[in-house]
Amino acid sequence: MVATDIDARIETFDPEDPVFALHRGGKMEISASVPLRDAHDLSLAYTPGVARVCEAIHADPEVAHEYTWVSNTVAVITDGTAVLGLGDIGPAASMPVMEGKAVLFKQFGGVDAIPVALDTTDVDEIVETIIRLAPTFGGVNLEDISSPRCFEIERRLKDALDIPVFHDDQHGTAVVVLAALINALRLTDRDMEDIKVVISGAGAAGVAITQILRESGVRKVSVLDRAGVIHSGRTDLNSVKQLLADQTSGWAKPGTVDDALRGADVLIGVSGGTIAESAVAGMAEDAIVFALANPTPEVHPDVASRHARVVATGRSDFANQINNVLVFPGIFRGALDVRATAISESMKIAAAHAIADLVGDDLAESYVIPSPFDPRVATAVARAVTDTARREGLARRPY
Amino acid sequence: MVATDIDARIETFDPEDPVFALHRGGKMEISASVPLRDAHDLSLAYTPGVARVCEAIHADPEVAHEYTWVSNTVAVITDGTAVLGLGDIGPAASMPVMEGKAVLFKQFGGVDAIPVALDTTDVDEIVETIIRLAPTFGGVNLEDISSPRCFEIERRLKDALDIPVFHDDQHGTAVVVLAALINALRLTDRDMEDIKVVISGAGAAGVAITQILRESGVRKVSVLDRAGVIHSGRTDLNSVKQLLADQTSGWAKPGTVDDALRGADVLIGVSGGTIAESAVAGMAEDAIVFALANPTPEVHPDVASRHARVVATGRSDFANQINNVLVFPGIFRGALDVRATAISESMKIAAAHAIADLVGDDLAESYVIPSPFDPRVATAVARAVTDTARREGLARRPY
Repeated sequence: MVATDIDARIETFDPEDPVFALHRGGKMEISASVPLRDAHDLSLAYTPGVARVCEAIHADPEVAHEYTWVSNTVAVITDGTAVLGLGDIGPAASMPVMEGKAVLFKQFGGVDAIPVALDTTDVDEIVETIIRLAPTFGGVNLEDISSPRCFEIERRLKDALDIPVFHDDQHGTAVVVLAALINALRLTDRDMEDIKVVISGAGAAGVAITQILRESGVRKVSVLDRAGVIHSGRTDLNSVKQLLADQTSGWAKPGTVDDALRGADVLIGVSGGTIAESAVAGMAEDAIVFALANPTPEVHPDVASRHARVVATGRSDFANQINNVLVFPGIFRGALDVRATAISESMKIAAAHAIADLVGDDLAESYVIPSPFDPRVATAVARAVTDTARREGLARRPY
Repeated sequence: MVATDIDARIETFDPEDPVFALHRGGKMEISASVPLRDAHDLSLAYTPGVARVCEAIHADPEVAHEYTWVSNTVAVITDGTAVLGLGDIGPAASMPVMEGKAVLFKQFGGVDAIPVALDTTDVDEIVETIIRLAPTFGGVNLEDISSPRCFEIERRLKDALDIPVFHDDQHGTAVVVLAALINALRLTDRDMEDIKVVISGAGAAGVAITQILRESGVRKVSVLDRAGVIHSGRTDLNSVKQLLADQTSGWAKPGTVDDALRGADVLIGVSGGTIAESAVAGMAEDAIVFALANPTPEVHPDVASRHARVVATGRSDFANQINNVLVFPGIFRGALDVRATAISESMKIAAAHAIADLVGDDLAESYVIPSPFDPRVATAVARAVTDTARREGLARRPY
């Protein structure tokens, strides 16, 4: 994510703005799902009746999964360090995004999500805080935590917890990109094994996309950061980028984005930077361009379309909107339904295929990915996750 | 709270039990308070629109209070060490109570409350975890944390945070007891300054009741734990009980509960123990007995009524139910409405008077406290809190 000069944009605060009218008082609320009309209701939902449920869980912790809301609840947790394209704006200012994410979880996946903004950016403190909170939630969705800290935080939480931990900026993006790419390759009759891919951006999304593409058979990947193609000859690489250099060493060569794109089949932009038309013009025939920076794509889709056969962005006002909302509600819906102990690489790849398959015979240059409002998506993703969880032995609930 | 032998009570788990049917899947859910029907809605509630709200908060943190749900949200936080009368049953088994509390917050106070069960019982870890979570909430309701740990946790959080921190087992109980006592004394024409009070139980509730009674003018208080009256001659006192001994040293004398009750005007039972009829029989004329242990009062109200003029319990199936639900929803409603920096002693006393005043001319032996379902209660309590907050300069929101 590219940090933005916030102070220069404050003129955007306008109380007449419909966005502010909508956000007034927040975007979500709690509601009781049981009646509380009289003393009898209270005696069942609260004391003395509730004590019997507590006793039953104390005797058999498995009972908790059926008789509390925990098993349908996901924490959307941030430290405010990489919020949208705004950068490190802190926990309080990140809350509107976390609330938005929470209501999307409910709307699209029926998941009860709670926004959690942490007042610490220390990796150890974030990890231990979330571990202490774990009895409160059925899953953890990490959100808008800066790279490369996000990788260590996710890895340590996955090691420590037996509930799903999912950094959406990484994996939600990787899954939806893979889904669109599966269909774009089908349309242009190419195979994962043969394509040359350029990923512009080596943050959370770029790293996860590289990983899922490699697992899907892609062999020729170049990843770029602001200094150009990442390769093992560079001396400025952190450990995550060093790993990227190792993983792509068979293909990636030193150079600029223009150099890397020359003859490439696929460009995936997750950088927030700008890519010149001349660079896109150098790509192979039937090029595929996913310019996902939001709100300003790395290359304008109208410009990209002059040189590429399939163009996608993160925006709803152009064809092929590549949006994480296609992924995270269904991923967690499925994981919670079977009480999965983790969200595995296979589940993510299955989810991508499930999304891609929904396009079916309607596949076209302007339709490689379903709409976020396609009501089939979350169900299909959840089904892919539950099927995979059962197959992999990660499902603790048998149905 | 007295720990119960949980294992001996497991026969209470019966899936046909209406309590379990009610609790299935939990008792609460999240709902969106904004429309999410189409891409336009999404562009306002989430990206790209939401970025403008984030930027506005980053520029002026005060904006967060108007444009997120944080300012109406309270965390109901436990470590599971003193749950109801069940004792230390752990965080997972405490969740049904925390959920119940959360839905009562919404039902009676319009407060969005989130149950949080912590997987640690270390005081330092609990304190630092809640401090890190603070940007997520507008207030903290501590719940079912064992004594004397609860006192240090609350004190340190109050020092560290500028949002209200309220340990309901202490202060909710103290406020509702004071409310009932105000009316019982009015009915029997006695003054706080003159009465002799015996408090059976020196845990969270007993300590807080002692404090609020002293602040209300009561001078003759004896507090008992299982070893009898707490007095400075004892060598088995922790620091909290030592303070109780100092505070009551002008009156309290060594002895049993029978000794202490001889000639006493008021018995307040918050122990979970049993008090013999003979002890109650030794109280003064027009005695007042609040036997609040739940579900089994220290003395059965029918027995107490033979010797006392006013009898109250924590149960809904007898007259005069003394229940915290009369207090915590209105306390936080008021505190959140004015963004109070703390919940002061004066606010609690004002809340007790507001509750007591609702009884008005209907005051009778069997009606010293309003019903938990009296719709006037939360509003009256909230008003008492907001008025006091403004008077004390603790209100950050002017209306």
